[in-house]
Amino acid sequence: MPEIAKGLEGVVAAESRICKIDGQNGKLYYLGYSIEDLVKSCSFEEVTFLLLNGQLPNRAQLDEFSKSMRSQRSLPDPVVRMIREFPDRSHPMEMLQAAVLYLAGYRAEGNEAADPNDCRKAVHLIAQLPTVIAVWQRAREGKKPIEPRSDLSHGANFLYMLSGDEPGEVIGRVMDGCLVLHAEHSFNASTFTGRVVASTLSTCYSSISAAIGALYGSLHGGANERVMEMADKIVEPEKAAEWVNRALDKKEKIMGMGHRVYRAKDPRAIIIEEYLEELTETTGDAGYFKLLKEVERTFRERMEEKGKPIYPNVDFFSGAVYRMLGIPTILFTPVFAMSRISGWLSHIIEQLEDNRIYRPTAHYVGEIGKKIVPLEQR
Amino acid sequence: MPEIAKGLEGVVAAESRICKIDGQNGKLYYLGYSIEDLVKSCSFEEVTFLLLNGQLPNRAQLDEFSKSMRSQRSLPDPVVRMIREFPDRSHPMEMLQAAVLYLAGYRAEGNEAADPNDCRKAVHLIAQLPTVIAVWQRAREGKKPIEPRSDLSHGANFLYMLSGDEPGEVIGRVMDGCLVLHAEHSFNASTFTGRVVASTLSTCYSSISAAIGALYGSLHGGANERVMEMADKIVEPEKAAEWVNRALDKKEKIMGMGHRVYRAKDPRAIIIEEYLEELTETTGDAGYFKLLKEVERTFRERMEEKGKPIYPNVDFFSGAVYRMLGIPTILFTPVFAMSRISGWLSHIIEQLEDNRIYRPTAHYVGEIGKKIVPLEQR
Repeated sequence: MPEIAKGLEGVVAAESRICKIDGQNGKLYYLGYSIEDLVKSCSFEEVTFLLLNGQLPNRAQLDEFSKSMRSQRSLPDPVVRMIREFPDRSHPMEMLQAAVLYLAGYRAEGNEAADPNDCRKAVHLIAQLPTVIAVWQRAREGKKPIEPRSDLSHGANFLYMLSGDEPGEVIGRVMDGCLVLHAEHSFNASTFTGRVVASTLSTCYSSISAAIGALYGSLHGGANERVMEMADKIVEPEKAAEWVNRALDKKEKIMGMGHRVYRAKDPRAIIIEEYLEELTETTGDAGYFKLLKEVERTFRERMEEKGKPIYPNVDFFSGAVYRMLGIPTILFTPVFAMSRISGWLSHIIEQLEDNRIYRPTAHYVGEIGKKIVPLEQR
Repeated sequence: MPEIAKGLEGVVAAESRICKIDGQNGKLYYLGYSIEDLVKSCSFEEVTFLLLNGQLPNRAQLDEFSKSMRSQRSLPDPVVRMIREFPDRSHPMEMLQAAVLYLAGYRAEGNEAADPNDCRKAVHLIAQLPTVIAVWQRAREGKKPIEPRSDLSHGANFLYMLSGDEPGEVIGRVMDGCLVLHAEHSFNASTFTGRVVASTLSTCYSSISAAIGALYGSLHGGANERVMEMADKIVEPEKAAEWVNRALDKKEKIMGMGHRVYRAKDPRAIIIEEYLEELTETTGDAGYFKLLKEVERTFRERMEEKGKPIYPNVDFFSGAVYRMLGIPTILFTPVFAMSRISGWLSHIIEQLEDNRIYRPTAHYVGEIGKKIVPLEQR
């Protein structure tokens, strides 16, 4: 019997220059730059330029790139209609997966092929995704869509399109920073899906749509939703310790704790905790921060008793941050897609630059040569 | 440096009981039954039952299954509108990839989870895909959609919805047989994509949509289109030998020849050649048959000179068959999807029955620890 790499665990499927996760030391790099530096110095647009072109832009390049992205934030009317009429029973991730294909119908002339340069032209898709999400959410609330504004950052404009209110400096910066934090994380099921589809020489629209489908899965996206479900059950910070202790006694899982790859603390978790603290100061509402810190403290004490340190991951604080930014829970995974799309496109470009179609095999364990019994004798 | 399995070649990613390809002997089995037997004895509906349930139906099961599929062929009005309004510049595979997500919004109550039984309830999707394709094609021709008929087989009804004419016995049987032939072929980029997305516990709608995206790629679907492009260039059977010889002299590739897996002749190619012969007799139009046989003969002679036999694959004759059934070339890959969806759903169910999320790794070959030069100094 051949060796079966279930879930492809331990299989190295490609070389990549995009992202390094140093789980042992709790470090994350995009194209060689640490996530701490990127989040401090670069906007989401700048990081997107880095991911698509392999290097940081100079002033002229960034101005041009930023202008191009901002001028492409609007949606064609038929796409707005399609989003607003999307069946009520669907999840917004299904809507998003479909909207990308709808937007493919408006790509630039000549952008038909599976070619790295054509993929770079698909930057309009990165520009439009926040608008798609905001149009859907407002339709759900029975409200008219709000036209994007080109004087706001990618993150700030998204919040503006959701509420109609221009976000303050802290709010806008935190939103854009969250997009930087989630933009890339090497191979994972959605990025890998995007690369597999791209490897058939399908268009980047089909590949990104497929990646969104993978991110929708509850084993992939959605962990921060479940952290907030926990927070909603705990309600008050004072009850957190008791709740966590009881859950652990019942061998229940505490969401947002630990990470398959990071042995040290997830560097994104440290940054997002700072964001939550900053939002707490700005808004004067310390509820979530206190509650989550109490969960973390109780959990850590219990783990220390067992001698195995487990730290909060990026999902532990991000749901609370999103709530404080005014983002409804159902949009958490769509917002993840809105950020990760830059990483997906980067991986699709890298895949096409040195392509081989992904074609693993299956080990057949069934029968062969069965005879068909005529229908009436079955 | 770790060993890199580029394109995952040679990697065994899972066990499977669904399909056995015996390339050495030119044999293909679905759930243990040979493709020759299946195509002779079973309708596409019966084969779909086999793929979704792991065994052939008895009379009562088939009647119930068939009735259920046939009663679900119609599309909700908003879906018809969405298809008809899909941007003109898009390929129908992009439309199909989106339509599946639209149809997800009409799934049966309770069919929300990534669960094998929920996937079996998604059989309405298999029933509806031909309608989606026919509605799109007729819109493109400026014609009204034609309501599906429940007294026709899956294949015959598709042709009826395209043209409005009830197909004759041979035509209907050949179409349904082509769907049986293409329903399943073990792991390949689209089926693998469907399994990867399903492994995140995404819905079967997201997974199938993603698989359609992979099939759209020119390295995967579309080979039969390119065979017909060749036929369109050759025009007359008498000119085929000269054309093939000249192409081979110029080291050009002859489309539809050879198969990565089959060393002996692809068993589906033998069956589809018989179909083409049958259609030739029925219609009295021998043009494509003569032309393709002449291409095959010339190609074989040239290969025999080199001592390496290469046989026609399933794509070599299928394009001509589809044309003779009245299917426009742009629908060849959508028709492939309309058939393969049964196989995809079968694999998604198998994946969920013993799931592990697909998560290969990448070998990082870039730098780390780069310092960000301030924007104005770049």
